[in-house]
Amino acid sequence: MPEFLKLIPPQDALKEFLAHIPVQIKLEIIDTSSAIGRVTAEPIVAPIPLPTFPRSTVDGYAALAEGTYGASESLPTYLKVSGEILMGAQPSFTLIKGQCAVIHTGGMLPAGANAVVMLENTQLVKNSEIEILRPVAIGENIIKIGEDVAEGEIVIPPGTLVRPPEIGGMMALGITRFKAAIPPKVGIISTGDEVIPPDMDLHIGQVRDVNTYTLSALVTQAGGIPRAYGIIPDEQDFLQDTANKALAECDIVVIAAGSSASTRDLTASIISDLGKPGVLVHGVNLRPGKPTILGVCNRIPVLGLPGNPVSALVTARLFLIPVIETLLGMDLDHPKATISAKLTLNVASQTGREDWVPVRLITSEVGHLAEPIFGKSNLIFTLARATGLVCIPPNATGLAADDVIDVLLL
Amino acid sequence: MPEFLKLIPPQDALKEFLAHIPVQIKLEIIDTSSAIGRVTAEPIVAPIPLPTFPRSTVDGYAALAEGTYGASESLPTYLKVSGEILMGAQPSFTLIKGQCAVIHTGGMLPAGANAVVMLENTQLVKNSEIEILRPVAIGENIIKIGEDVAEGEIVIPPGTLVRPPEIGGMMALGITRFKAAIPPKVGIISTGDEVIPPDMDLHIGQVRDVNTYTLSALVTQAGGIPRAYGIIPDEQDFLQDTANKALAECDIVVIAAGSSASTRDLTASIISDLGKPGVLVHGVNLRPGKPTILGVCNRIPVLGLPGNPVSALVTARLFLIPVIETLLGMDLDHPKATISAKLTLNVASQTGREDWVPVRLITSEVGHLAEPIFGKSNLIFTLARATGLVCIPPNATGLAADDVIDVLLL
Repeated sequence: MPEFLKLIPPQDALKEFLAHIPVQIKLEIIDTSSAIGRVTAEPIVAPIPLPTFPRSTVDGYAALAEGTYGASESLPTYLKVSGEILMGAQPSFTLIKGQCAVIHTGGMLPAGANAVVMLENTQLVKNSEIEILRPVAIGENIIKIGEDVAEGEIVIPPGTLVRPPEIGGMMALGITRFKAAIPPKVGIISTGDEVIPPDMDLHIGQVRDVNTYTLSALVTQAGGIPRAYGIIPDEQDFLQDTANKALAECDIVVIAAGSSASTRDLTASIISDLGKPGVLVHGVNLRPGKPTILGVCNRIPVLGLPGNPVSALVTARLFLIPVIETLLGMDLDHPKATISAKLTLNVASQTGREDWVPVRLITSEVGHLAEPIFGKSNLIFTLARATGLVCIPPNATGLAADDVIDVLLL
Repeated sequence: MPEFLKLIPPQDALKEFLAHIPVQIKLEIIDTSSAIGRVTAEPIVAPIPLPTFPRSTVDGYAALAEGTYGASESLPTYLKVSGEILMGAQPSFTLIKGQCAVIHTGGMLPAGANAVVMLENTQLVKNSEIEILRPVAIGENIIKIGEDVAEGEIVIPPGTLVRPPEIGGMMALGITRFKAAIPPKVGIISTGDEVIPPDMDLHIGQVRDVNTYTLSALVTQAGGIPRAYGIIPDEQDFLQDTANKALAECDIVVIAAGSSASTRDLTASIISDLGKPGVLVHGVNLRPGKPTILGVCNRIPVLGLPGNPVSALVTARLFLIPVIETLLGMDLDHPKATISAKLTLNVASQTGREDWVPVRLITSEVGHLAEPIFGKSNLIFTLARATGLVCIPPNATGLAADDVIDVLLL
């Protein structure tokens, strides 16, 4: 009863899958102010330099640096205070040698000035005269026009995830709207004769739908828009109709494929019938997640994920998130943040297979400890109790207690 | 001109600040299906055990384990197939020794059965009889009632950030609504006579508001609700009125305090007048972020952050996010994910001061490299160009090239 002809390593499976997905970034114009978590679809170009005028970085006196040379605490130089620069205004006067002007951090340098003496290095003699106790060099304590950004510079490349600094940078440039990738719509189909909606009364033998909700949440986190197609019984026609509908309406289709071999075979057959090229990968050398099916039908990626909730979540992270990121135009090589921790127990694995083991992190005096959570992969609370996942690569026979490992947060 | 009486280490400043914040978690009932990123406010208790019935973890034959003992490929045991268990249904029959029933992964074990023989270890002799080629032990290939979760067990403690697994776990238990912490409202006041809204035309000497938007985005990411109070000129009365309004309407107030010493002093004076105990910390031994002001006024935390965008973002991460998490009831000790990288250059620092240096990550064949981005802290694109931040602790004089450091993502 060999269900899989051959098990493909997860990296190869993903590569094969992505190679068949046509990438066409769909754009929309959005407000920068609410763009957190979105992805840029075109290069953001600076329409102006930043700063747009020479600014002081300190509180003090704008002056000509040449007029301060040789100044010291014992032999100060004297400068006439010829005015104060108001914040937000262009100074109306020009400084000449021997003069200075009160300036605040962020204030605009007046014409003639080429440096700012910090307040700490001056002494007020009378209202209109100060002592300079330390010289400044030309350009000291100022930011020049364009020192942050030059006019016409590409400041944010396409495919960039928008974080608070990108929002701030665009606002500083007056870019209050920009072109972002439209979040891909991900159709989610749950299957199984035993599966009922979570708000229904459970009869003995039935289980509540978990995958629709965990996968929807994951899609949302990854920057996609989930669209649930409900729970479909394990019947070829009904499932095929629903899959066709999802294929027509979405950018990605996910079928949580039931947990028995027969329902998985049904899913594979449905994906084959959806469109060309159909099933690309059926079976991955991975635990949990061996019976993963990856296909592309009429240019739309279709994933048949194992029905048990833990396998569905792990395989969605490995195969669905990269597809969402690809359709958003993101670079898949972006580094992933992890937590370094010391394993508390040995974890065995089968050579040639990639294992993902849930671990609970414990903060101790000697740093983070990672305690493996052993349990059948059908148990959803195995994941709810876990802080993250640890990968045991295919070439390892396991991990040893006291190994320092990287935990990927769930 | 000593602006600060004493600079406090960041850790002590945060401790002092948090010690004065009264924690009162406000609750609301929300839908589990859209709860991603929310925080539980009460223990989630399992109303039923999981699973609710004994389930098979494989495709095969439910049987009495005792009837398979001694079976082997050369000397198989024979069992009568007395029926098939349909998914989602309670089996209507009871098995006795010598009998078995077809069962699918996730199917309910019939009365009498105590194990499942995997399909791979059987051979169909005729429609109603199979050979058992390998014995099973009692309990093999089944999940017992309550093996995932016991009835009445606290499955998710209060203060838990809801991730996809928590959503799945609650759905499995039929918990479609639960009590979550209400996201704290964070009032954000931008100050500065030179600051204008990003959609307005820039006159020379003016800059566009950045902090309202970067801080709003950060608050959103951290689970709070930002509320912008606009750009207020550096005038005591106007600023005091706005701060009073924000204090009355919000759970946290942030004043992006301008960049000159005089506007920072103004902010400190306004916070002092807002309510008791007023300013707790004025000046932190931190770069960027030295002029940070932390206070509590009439039980509401109030932060006076430096006005320059980089300092504002860094100090908001260090002091604002922990306050938001505290008001959500979260444990602040949760481990933070980072990326391990090798520094490309030496970075100097002053002993006694905590420095946060922006770095750009470069993926190379030898792993991640972190390239420090040097720049005046006024330059917002210093952060937009950075992947993350590296901390130089107070007891270090800097970091050396080739040091392996932890990068906190921005």
